[in-house]
Amino acid sequence: MSAPAGARTVRRHNLGLVLRRVAAAEPVARARVAELSGLTRGTVSSLVDELLAGHLLEELEADRGVPGRPANPLRLSRSGPAALGVELNVDRARACVLDLSGAVRALRTAPSDGSAWSSPAAGLDAVAELARQVLAETGGLRAVGAVAAVAGVVDRSGVLQQAPNLPGWAGLDVGAELTARLGLDVRAGNEADLGALGELWFGGLDGVQDFLHVSGEIGVGAGIVLGGTLFGGGGGRAGELGHVVVDPGGALCRCGGRGCLEQVAGQRALLGAAGVRTVDALEAAADRGEPRALEALAVAGRALGIAVVGAVNLLDVPAVVLGGLHARLGRWLVPPIVAQLAARSRGGACPAVIVSTLGSGAAVRGAAGSVVRAVLDDPGAHLAGRAGAV
Amino acid sequence: MSAPAGARTVRRHNLGLVLRRVAAAEPVARARVAELSGLTRGTVSSLVDELLAGHLLEELEADRGVPGRPANPLRLSRSGPAALGVELNVDRARACVLDLSGAVRALRTAPSDGSAWSSPAAGLDAVAELARQVLAETGGLRAVGAVAAVAGVVDRSGVLQQAPNLPGWAGLDVGAELTARLGLDVRAGNEADLGALGELWFGGLDGVQDFLHVSGEIGVGAGIVLGGTLFGGGGGRAGELGHVVVDPGGALCRCGGRGCLEQVAGQRALLGAAGVRTVDALEAAADRGEPRALEALAVAGRALGIAVVGAVNLLDVPAVVLGGLHARLGRWLVPPIVAQLAARSRGGACPAVIVSTLGSGAAVRGAAGSVVRAVLDDPGAHLAGRAGAV
Repeated sequence: MSAPAGARTVRRHNLGLVLRRVAAAEPVARARVAELSGLTRGTVSSLVDELLAGHLLEELEADRGVPGRPANPLRLSRSGPAALGVELNVDRARACVLDLSGAVRALRTAPSDGSAWSSPAAGLDAVAELARQVLAETGGLRAVGAVAAVAGVVDRSGVLQQAPNLPGWAGLDVGAELTARLGLDVRAGNEADLGALGELWFGGLDGVQDFLHVSGEIGVGAGIVLGGTLFGGGGGRAGELGHVVVDPGGALCRCGGRGCLEQVAGQRALLGAAGVRTVDALEAAADRGEPRALEALAVAGRALGIAVVGAVNLLDVPAVVLGGLHARLGRWLVPPIVAQLAARSRGGACPAVIVSTLGSGAAVRGAAGSVVRAVLDDPGAHLAGRAGAV
Repeated sequence: MSAPAGARTVRRHNLGLVLRRVAAAEPVARARVAELSGLTRGTVSSLVDELLAGHLLEELEADRGVPGRPANPLRLSRSGPAALGVELNVDRARACVLDLSGAVRALRTAPSDGSAWSSPAAGLDAVAELARQVLAETGGLRAVGAVAAVAGVVDRSGVLQQAPNLPGWAGLDVGAELTARLGLDVRAGNEADLGALGELWFGGLDGVQDFLHVSGEIGVGAGIVLGGTLFGGGGGRAGELGHVVVDPGGALCRCGGRGCLEQVAGQRALLGAAGVRTVDALEAAADRGEPRALEALAVAGRALGIAVVGAVNLLDVPAVVLGGLHARLGRWLVPPIVAQLAARSRGGACPAVIVSTLGSGAAVRGAAGSVVRAVLDDPGAHLAGRAGAV
């Protein structure tokens, strides 16, 4: 006989409460969890037992050196449910496995088969192969869900609606394609959005809950976090920073417009302006002080500054995080961005410009992290076999 | 002996429910209100009696032509609480009184004493005098609150933090200044934000709940409505469209930057480029087909288009409403804005560009409307003498 709905709802709520209290304070004794959660010790013990049985928590050996009755401290399981994140970008595929604590247990990257993928199938097969490799490496963990970060606009059902930098991919249901290849539920999301969430959860932002995360690679996107959650705007696809106009008479963009940020500060544009073929070469040239490389970076930084000024005016965010390519080139890009913000700050405080410590790894971590989040947010649903993500 | 808190809370909630059901269906019989609200007839009658006694509702004469027992239909009171809205703009002051139904009962506008106000005190005195005039005109109504729409950035406490187009005004507590002058609680808000709310509540948007409202006059601002509520962004001051950069090497702006939208599409810039002194003259010249006026409008329209493209990319809104000055000049501005959006839409749907029917009257109506909204949202607080606004 099952408990009435009311009691079940309360228990489900409290399961999540206990799990998150452990996550925030681990390693932690049951008695302390009771204090932190406001639940009785008996209730906590019963909930903890369920979370232990479901492999969401694990008990550590008690510290025998401490006097008094030893209590086995609790922490999030490192050997239970795990999360798969994959990234399908223009020039690379990536896959990682996080355990419930958010620790990276395996991470692999592979370049695309050419300047972009030779076909969507080639890209999907490559990322699926990487996923199989990281899952095999972490064989003791059981992936309970997966999210794919894709370099394009993904609608709510997971279909890639627009992917100007992945020609031929629009219309593809990336989640369904990868689900079929992996035999594991895969949802798809926008790379820039998931990068911003990766930054929020795993970056070194020190509690900043409102920021614009610029996640430039070949294209230039942005994820917007407001109040600690992803801002989707009116239709769920906010943050297309790459198509903000920074030079009205400038180069023609794949979107059909002229002078989009992407045409000045995207990877292809930057390498072309600097006259080099790789980001490594660009960094080396800039390090040697080569004028053409420095000029390309100065122009890109100024353009980023102009776009960021617009975004800051429209969104009123106190911080801008440079991710991906732009994190790697942060030494050269931050000064011109700060200069634009300072010149246009109307005497008010300037937003902080922060270089991401995750760099191009933010999106794949945000992808896997959203699976972890779903488990922590509602462990009852996970235990009932209905774990969701994104 | 007062009712226990639980019952009082429920009654307060239901008071609002009944009031809003009447507002949506007026004129409406008590029995129909019971059906619409899901409350019993007895409860509705008791709540209606309280709302009648508090002058929030009024009864109409029953239609004696209808067979059966006549029921006096209910509607929002046209003679009870009223709302004062004022606007302090660079070149004018404005004041209006709305009754609870949102109908404009009085509206007055006065030009500023020069190209802008000779001093903050002159502007505050002028708007207070206008307010006294509209309140006198509607002597039978009792203003229960007031909101001032100000052409600048207003913080949450009502202090004008930045007002690049009202030199010398920054730091002024406009709400407190007007409260002292009028003996009526006045709160202050940003003109562009209140314009967007005016558009949402009183404009002809036909249910559109997500839009960018461009409210240009001397400056160019915007209010952003998402999901039917005002979007404040990270810090509450989102929507500074006027300082989005549309021409990086362009004219110096009061904000310290170059090429801000305001320097191309603001009123001063437009009149200067067209070589005329007033908006009337600009309209007349454009109507006559004078090339310089048409060129100025085309340049402004293109700049607005570039800024709007950026905002649409960042906010993903399906509609853009041109208000204020730009509504008046909509005939000439809409085509170049639509052209920019279409050129840069990446094959997706283009946001609609709508010309406001309220024009420069949106802000003062949004200001008064937010007082009306506060009463409708929580009539119990109003009846207890704690009516709030904004």
